[in-house]
Amino acid sequence: MASQGRVKVGVLGATGTVGQRFITQLSDHPEFELVALGASASSAGNSYKDAVAGRWKQMQPIPQNVRDMPVQACEPEHFKECSVVFSGLDSGPAGAIEEAFRAAELRVFSNAKNYRQDPLCPLVVPLVNPDHFSILSHQRSQMQPPLRKGFIVTNANCATTGIVVAFKALEQAFGPLETIMVSTMQAISGAGYPGVSSLDILNNVVPYISGEEEKVEWETAKILGGLKENNTAFDLHENSPLTISAHCNRVPVIDGHSASISLRFAKRPAPSPEQVKKVFEEYTCEAQELGCPSAPKQAITVHDEPDRPQPRLDCDWQNGAGMNVGRIRKCPVLDIKFTSLVNNVMLGAATSSVMNAEIALRKGLLS
Amino acid sequence: MASQGRVKVGVLGATGTVGQRFITQLSDHPEFELVALGASASSAGNSYKDAVAGRWKQMQPIPQNVRDMPVQACEPEHFKECSVVFSGLDSGPAGAIEEAFRAAELRVFSNAKNYRQDPLCPLVVPLVNPDHFSILSHQRSQMQPPLRKGFIVTNANCATTGIVVAFKALEQAFGPLETIMVSTMQAISGAGYPGVSSLDILNNVVPYISGEEEKVEWETAKILGGLKENNTAFDLHENSPLTISAHCNRVPVIDGHSASISLRFAKRPAPSPEQVKKVFEEYTCEAQELGCPSAPKQAITVHDEPDRPQPRLDCDWQNGAGMNVGRIRKCPVLDIKFTSLVNNVMLGAATSSVMNAEIALRKGLLS
Amino acid sequence: MASQGRVKVGVLGATGTVGQRFITQLSDHPEFELVALGASASSAGNSYKDAVAGRWKQMQPIPQNVRDMPVQACEPEHFKECSVVFSGLDSGPAGAIEEAFRAAELRVFSNAKNYRQDPLCPLVVPLVNPDHFSILSHQRSQMQPPLRKGFIVTNANCATTGIVVAFKALEQAFGPLETIMVSTMQAISGAGYPGVSSLDILNNVVPYISGEEEKVEWETAKILGGLKENNTAFDLHENSPLTISAHCNRVPVIDGHSASISLRFAKRPAPSPEQVKKVFEEYTCEAQELGCPSAPKQAITVHDEPDRPQPRLDCDWQNGAGMNVGRIRKCPVLDIKFTSLVNNVMLGAATSSVMNAEIALRKGLLS
Amino acid sequence: MASQGRVKVGVLGATGTVGQRFITQLSDHPEFELVALGASASSAGNSYKDAVAGRWKQMQPIPQNVRDMPVQACEPEHFKECSVVFSGLDSGPAGAIEEAFRAAELRVFSNAKNYRQDPLCPLVVPLVNPDHFSILSHQRSQMQPPLRKGFIVTNANCATTGIVVAFKALEQAFGPLETIMVSTMQAISGAGYPGVSSLDILNNVVPYISGEEEKVEWETAKILGGLKENNTAFDLHENSPLTISAHCNRVPVIDGHSASISLRFAKRPAPSPEQVKKVFEEYTCEAQELGCPSAPKQAITVHDEPDRPQPRLDCDWQNGAGMNVGRIRKCPVLDIKFTSLVNNVMLGAATSSVMNAEIALRKGLLS
Repeated sequence: MASQGRVKVGVLGATGTVGQRFITQLSDHPEFELVALGASASSAGNSYKDAVAGRWKQMQPIPQNVRDMPVQACEPEHFKECSVVFSGLDSGPAGAIEEAFRAAELRVFSNAKNYRQDPLCPLVVPLVNPDHFSILSHQRSQMQPPLRKGFIVTNANCATTGIVVAFKALEQAFGPLETIMVSTMQAISGAGYPGVSSLDILNNVVPYISGEEEKVEWETAKILGGLKENNTAFDLHENSPLTISAHCNRVPVIDGHSASISLRFAKRPAPSPEQVKKVFEEYTCEAQELGCPSAPKQAITVHDEPDRPQPRLDCDWQNGAGMNVGRIRKCPVLDIKFTSLVNNVMLGAATSSVMNAEIALRKGLLS
Repeated sequence: MASQGRVKVGVLGATGTVGQRFITQLSDHPEFELVALGASASSAGNSYKDAVAGRWKQMQPIPQNVRDMPVQACEPEHFKECSVVFSGLDSGPAGAIEEAFRAAELRVFSNAKNYRQDPLCPLVVPLVNPDHFSILSHQRSQMQPPLRKGFIVTNANCATTGIVVAFKALEQAFGPLETIMVSTMQAISGAGYPGVSSLDILNNVVPYISGEEEKVEWETAKILGGLKENNTAFDLHENSPLTISAHCNRVPVIDGHSASISLRFAKRPAPSPEQVKKVFEEYTCEAQELGCPSAPKQAITVHDEPDRPQPRLDCDWQNGAGMNVGRIRKCPVLDIKFTSLVNNVMLGAATSSVMNAEIALRKGLLS
Repeated sequence: MASQGRVKVGVLGATGTVGQRFITQLSDHPEFELVALGASASSAGNSYKDAVAGRWKQMQPIPQNVRDMPVQACEPEHFKECSVVFSGLDSGPAGAIEEAFRAAELRVFSNAKNYRQDPLCPLVVPLVNPDHFSILSHQRSQMQPPLRKGFIVTNANCATTGIVVAFKALEQAFGPLETIMVSTMQAISGAGYPGVSSLDILNNVVPYISGEEEKVEWETAKILGGLKENNTAFDLHENSPLTISAHCNRVPVIDGHSASISLRFAKRPAPSPEQVKKVFEEYTCEAQELGCPSAPKQAITVHDEPDRPQPRLDCDWQNGAGMNVGRIRKCPVLDIKFTSLVNNVMLGAATSSVMNAEIALRKGLLS
Repeated sequence: MASQGRVKVGVLGATGTVGQRFITQLSDHPEFELVALGASASSAGNSYKDAVAGRWKQMQPIPQNVRDMPVQACEPEHFKECSVVFSGLDSGPAGAIEEAFRAAELRVFSNAKNYRQDPLCPLVVPLVNPDHFSILSHQRSQMQPPLRKGFIVTNANCATTGIVVAFKALEQAFGPLETIMVSTMQAISGAGYPGVSSLDILNNVVPYISGEEEKVEWETAKILGGLKENNTAFDLHENSPLTISAHCNRVPVIDGHSASISLRFAKRPAPSPEQVKKVFEEYTCEAQELGCPSAPKQAITVHDEPDRPQPRLDCDWQNGAGMNVGRIRKCPVLDIKFTSLVNNVMLGAATSSVMNAEIALRKGLLS
């Protein structure tokens, strides 16, 4: 793999917050070589450091090898050198641009929401359902004209990503889930930059994030479900209906989405908290088995201290690539309850796309 | 009422955070006259301003008429002038001290947790169950020797108080609740002073508050339940079992406990969100009907904006004496879900005790 | 005064954060009657509650008597009923609009920065220099055509307001100041809404506020200086040059600008900290002497505790209408140092304009 | 160096916040081998993970090779294997314990304040004055009995460390400083754990840190001064008196002390901001020249963006081992002003002690 050098990649929406994360992760990636940057027309023509001036909000400086790279308009002709593009575009422009890149035979790994509900696009959390890549040959075949290489893969909403890894581990071990109640406490970085006004969130909780509850409820079913009809459609968990109720709240935390989760299994009797803990600790996923460089060593870290995981202390564990749980106990209403934490800007966003591409590389989808 | 002057009252634990709130509310109360202050032995003998030096954390200065009042040890002999004491004591000393004051024929309105589970002590949220005062004559009769005037009334944990008003309104209109799921986001002031270390909560969520979930689950049943056996015992909602599951989280908010709540009614079909909203808006309680000066005009305020109530903006509404709800909608798992907010230091603590005493005054229990 | 009823007033920029403060203060003002609201063309035609929907960020609801008032475009023809308008406009539109209102013979009390450096416009901190109103007849005379009633008065930048009251007290007692070093720690509300992104300020300090240091340095000299040339010009403290150096920082505080101040007097020997303290405590101003309803009882509150004033605890003291100082001590480099605090949204913004109008009313400038 | 293995070291106060930082840095240090841990008597006898349970507040788990190490009482007999101990002790016990370890011929590198003003103990900021180690042979000679190996070296207060690097660079290039005004905005982690109550600092500024201003003013002179009398005494900058005035404030920031600094040079004319910038950028120190593994690549990083450095974004740059400055400009009152930032828990605490020991190793002081 990569014997003749790294796969050339580009980043769309390079000046935004997700784009900055892509750049940080790709500037010295062992398998991907960052060669092209795309942003809005107003940025095009500038060097990256000028285009992003005043908006670079990462804790390390702009990587040396990216500072002077030119920023281009998000048009496929400027990305001819690339096999892959990572999209950190806002949902406004993302739809048309990503479609154009796919039509130009590029593989698009997108963090935007536009194609998450598309019946041909896999919605892949890399620690959960990379088997959904199997629909890609069908996706290509349905384009006009049919494509040979181009496709769109999306990752999930950051709040969904933060909880669905645990659900997958449980379904794999104990059979289908029947009911899930989740109440989230989401970080401000989930809203991008400038995103949430400080006057709205300092010393405050906002009990509403537009569209978020619907995303969590819908995406979870698509991700946990399988493929059907000879890998041409998603079954949306339809064989074992799953009812989910989400309460989504914004809290004054910079990075890290926490959630309070209660759930009920279809099968009786339900597993004990100890059995659930063991399953979480032993859960491994394809990204790990394939040796993806961005995969965490431990997919789900179970914290033993009664007051963990906490966003400030646990969010950067394993470079934010795994999921964290704690306080696994019986739920008086459903079967089991626990608390969860995900790094919303890493596994919840850029790391998911990058790990998806690493998996795709190993599955031969990038050649 | 109060024709011959105000009822003389004292405050136990006067230098602590709850004690400071009592002082703020009682220093110019129309019906109560603050005449005695109790604190630990180390403070006794000082003026209040000296005893509380470096620990006064209210947004207004120490009331002029309290600054130079002497602080005494928490012994009944120093409170002979009082008919009523309000206890903001920590749970360590509260048990023995409150018992001694009751034995000395004082009426004790306590914010401490010690007697909340006592089978003779009413656990009263003033907007919900002042009818539980009816057990007080039995409480007095069971003391050795029987008492003529003394009793202990407790108010509820701040997180319980913050949600149970809504449950009462719903049960009154639609019959018993069957199942409640609640995930709280609680303010730091709920832990007292110095309480939560800033290193633990700044830019963080702590998914655990010791003992809190058990309190919410147990206290709710006592408060919503009735009296039985001729007003000599609490029925703990036993005729219609109520299952409650609580997740309690600490968030970086100064004042105001928020909660995400889902619930299911026993009766089918369940009411609609519109019916629930109407019931909340129309809910009135005995404290209002009796004209208590600390009662809110609106017991439950329903916020129409999709992102309200919020602690910073809504916590001080009605001087923190009412409950706030918003986002009433169908729950895919149970029947109805909504968000709630209570001012944990006002209705959730001092205001409850003061309003309980105002109700007791009107019921003739202080004469 | 006001024998025939209150003075009719309007608010320009009524939906913005300063406008909301004006509305809160004017909705039940004893001397002013709020009768007209102006906002951008996109809001005009709506009721106030609809125009401000989603942007009302005050801790009390929209006043009942304002909810249904119509919002108009900021054109004088819609404010014919008014004698006075308060301007909370952004600096973009403020220049032209305020000029138009003045030309239409309205008295404009503005929080915008546009006319602060105007050689005809008084820059008035009501606790400091209402004597600068004496230039207003000259201001009117210089208009084309000359005006009979209309004028523009501005208040100062919130950071300037927060410190200049102390300087005035000192100069009045001890003669001219020679040197001032000030390092501010300013609240996010000073930047309006949405203003500062939460990603920029949560768990952070931003050591820069565009243009702020220049404003503090320039405005202080204009405010502390007198009038010259028969009340037709400002002397800008030119007779006794005052050198000011400001460092302006943004901190994660909602309301309340703090500052660390060191200063040197022209006269030797310099006063002692005790003398300075006495002067602060005894300082009174014309707004108090005239009995303005918005004036604080104590113009400068000196806090004795070593760790006060603090924004969270002291900002709302006296409804935010006074200045707070503490820690008065010798400065090893200059003469005296101390810490200061002002409520930037009250005295630092809306309260200044309202109090200026109250003073103007008493000086006969509104009739 | 270290050819025969690493130097064996211990940590005193191992369960505290500074002790935890020492452990994190020493658990895989190339030159030091962590072999002994000391804490209070109540912790002694436990494994480290048990002793620190509930108090480990680092963003990475307890290092694997430290989890099961035994914790001992802070008595020299338990540290016989060590050549060096790092002290993160509180000032209460630090005085006697550190003296006992020195008497037992251990080299003590202390973060405690006890010996900072000792006329025999060097107060060393590793990027500034490791030449002060020259007093150590005199220190040993003054003990009773004289010592062959043991000594005490302290590092400076975190606020002092954060500013003195810049002063050293300036004095080295432009001659003595005459006057310094500094206003700090200090992080909560500077106060240890539990340290600052969240009720005191959330949404607040506290304009006072007990003893801090005196430390900054005194320590700066000792550090910037030289040795005299044949390396047996500190000259405390006495040949060129330096006047310093500090205002120390606490702000709601987790890590990173910011400061607003103005200063005046003795020599006229003063250098320009451009000259100052160049000097900062080119400043190198002995720790770098000696190749210390903890030394930063860039001793002073000058940020070009007008709103940097910021604690959240810049604090971890170079693993917190360097100093950051920005906004270098003329000061209207003194000569030059700028803003500074230091990571108070890294260079401001543990990293200083570790780097001091690395320097001492290279100077032959550990053999």
